[in-house]
Amino acid sequence: MSSIVAIGSMAFDTIETPFGRVSKALGGSANYFSLSASHFAPVKVVSVVGEDYPKEHLALLQKKGVDTKGIKIEQGRTFHWAGKYSYDLNEATTLQTELNVFQNFEPQLPPDYTDSEFVFLGNIVPALQMKVLDQVKNPKFIAIDTMNFWIESSRDALVKAISRCHCLIINEAEIRQLTQTHNVVKAAQIVRGWGPQITLVKRGEYGAMLFDHGEVFSLPALPLAEVKDPTGAGDTFAGGFVGYLASQSNFSLSRSALRKAVVYGNVMASFTVQDFGFTCLLQLEKKAVEERFRRFVELTSFDKE
Amino acid sequence: MSSIVAIGSMAFDTIETPFGRVSKALGGSANYFSLSASHFAPVKVVSVVGEDYPKEHLALLQKKGVDTKGIKIEQGRTFHWAGKYSYDLNEATTLQTELNVFQNFEPQLPPDYTDSEFVFLGNIVPALQMKVLDQVKNPKFIAIDTMNFWIESSRDALVKAISRCHCLIINEAEIRQLTQTHNVVKAAQIVRGWGPQITLVKRGEYGAMLFDHGEVFSLPALPLAEVKDPTGAGDTFAGGFVGYLASQSNFSLSRSALRKAVVYGNVMASFTVQDFGFTCLLQLEKKAVEERFRRFVELTSFDKE
Repeated sequence: MSSIVAIGSMAFDTIETPFGRVSKALGGSANYFSLSASHFAPVKVVSVVGEDYPKEHLALLQKKGVDTKGIKIEQGRTFHWAGKYSYDLNEATTLQTELNVFQNFEPQLPPDYTDSEFVFLGNIVPALQMKVLDQVKNPKFIAIDTMNFWIESSRDALVKAISRCHCLIINEAEIRQLTQTHNVVKAAQIVRGWGPQITLVKRGEYGAMLFDHGEVFSLPALPLAEVKDPTGAGDTFAGGFVGYLASQSNFSLSRSALRKAVVYGNVMASFTVQDFGFTCLLQLEKKAVEERFRRFVELTSFDKE
Repeated sequence: MSSIVAIGSMAFDTIETPFGRVSKALGGSANYFSLSASHFAPVKVVSVVGEDYPKEHLALLQKKGVDTKGIKIEQGRTFHWAGKYSYDLNEATTLQTELNVFQNFEPQLPPDYTDSEFVFLGNIVPALQMKVLDQVKNPKFIAIDTMNFWIESSRDALVKAISRCHCLIINEAEIRQLTQTHNVVKAAQIVRGWGPQITLVKRGEYGAMLFDHGEVFSLPALPLAEVKDPTGAGDTFAGGFVGYLASQSNFSLSRSALRKAVVYGNVMASFTVQDFGFTCLLQLEKKAVEERFRRFVELTSFDKE
């Protein structure tokens, strides 16, 4: 088992969906990713919070096997995101983004982070993602996530960052925007031309597609009668995916390992969408994860002869 | 193997997509359904065309094992549909609907049609769908399709027709509209309350979901680098689904049979979307169908242990 170094946001989220509203709840990509991935492998987080961030939560992360040494506490306020979803929960409308302490953040990896073999570059300005990469000594697997905001404001830097990674994890609408190509199969070919051998396309309630080894794997999401808030689902998915790969006793990016990692990504995301915030990830037990893996087997099995 | 009696439209279609345009090409739900289903089992079509409909095409259908005795040729013009798709090929915008000879159509089944054990009620006014049902003596399996137009104009008659069927085949947006429920899992439960044990939700490029035996099966569509025109994909899907069920030597609606039928539905639809019209269905050989079935196995397989 290897450890994962992950950069991303620690945030307060204000979210409105047709099923409820929360104000300044704990969120951010680093939180969702690490709480998901830590079910599989140790995670070392690189992030920054303000003085207003609850210390108890950092202690809770540590209890869950998440190394928080790399989380700086700076003067000022924590990153705040406000967003809204309509019944089509596949797309968020950003209402407000207050970068606050992220404005002048310079990530510095603690010495024992730099040996991590797995790296997750969560959704953050591409320049910061690259600063993390510069400090990791010998990574075996680097996955990068992003969002429309960086595609629009920092496309060149983003493509440069992507070209240094093994795997791009991205929304369907975003890969179209990034490659200026409507067809997702063709879009994934363009990304492959930039460097990453693996592209993972997140499709919200429609599941995910994995492009690797010149092949495609497609997995539907679990149909749920109750979906309350999709915030963090993508990072939770990435956590299950990278987490499963890091949990292997021998490093492998085989077709079989990658596909199983996609299933675990979907398994973890299916818990996150059932309620606001990441409470469910905190309470989740191994048994529930394995039970849901079996539900994906049931959901997708058919007689192949 | 049993025969399938199918009612639906025979039409001229004028279609515009970002990838091309065709004017008054042969189309209609009965054409797509029967050309797809006849790869698996004999089909007996109930429909009506005008004097302007090419007789050679009816002869061609017969060659493919489609019984055309139930297709009336009436004075006047054939049904004409004009529609348009944007890059989001999942939804058509209807530009024009000329019912023409369908306006006063009274379906009358030829005597040897009435013994068919499988019935497909293609997308047409619910009153006509019921008139077909009234004439079939001892059906074992009845599937019904519909569209937003009938949900809006004849909802009560439609729900009545659906309640007499074993299986509803419907688009995702349409089941939401029909049940006035956004969540598809809950929408399928409502439909089950009306009568049908089986609901098949078509999701365009995202595949299909099957609700039966209180379980869900979800199959992604085949990711294709070239998709030109989705017209008829839903009827082609229904043709593969009902056709496979009718092709069984012993009648079964087992979980295994239904799931495999869904895969064959998707297999057949994947051919239709690759070009305008149904030319590909006419040329399709058994070998190509089985090859594509294998591609679905490849697309969806993962290590289940």
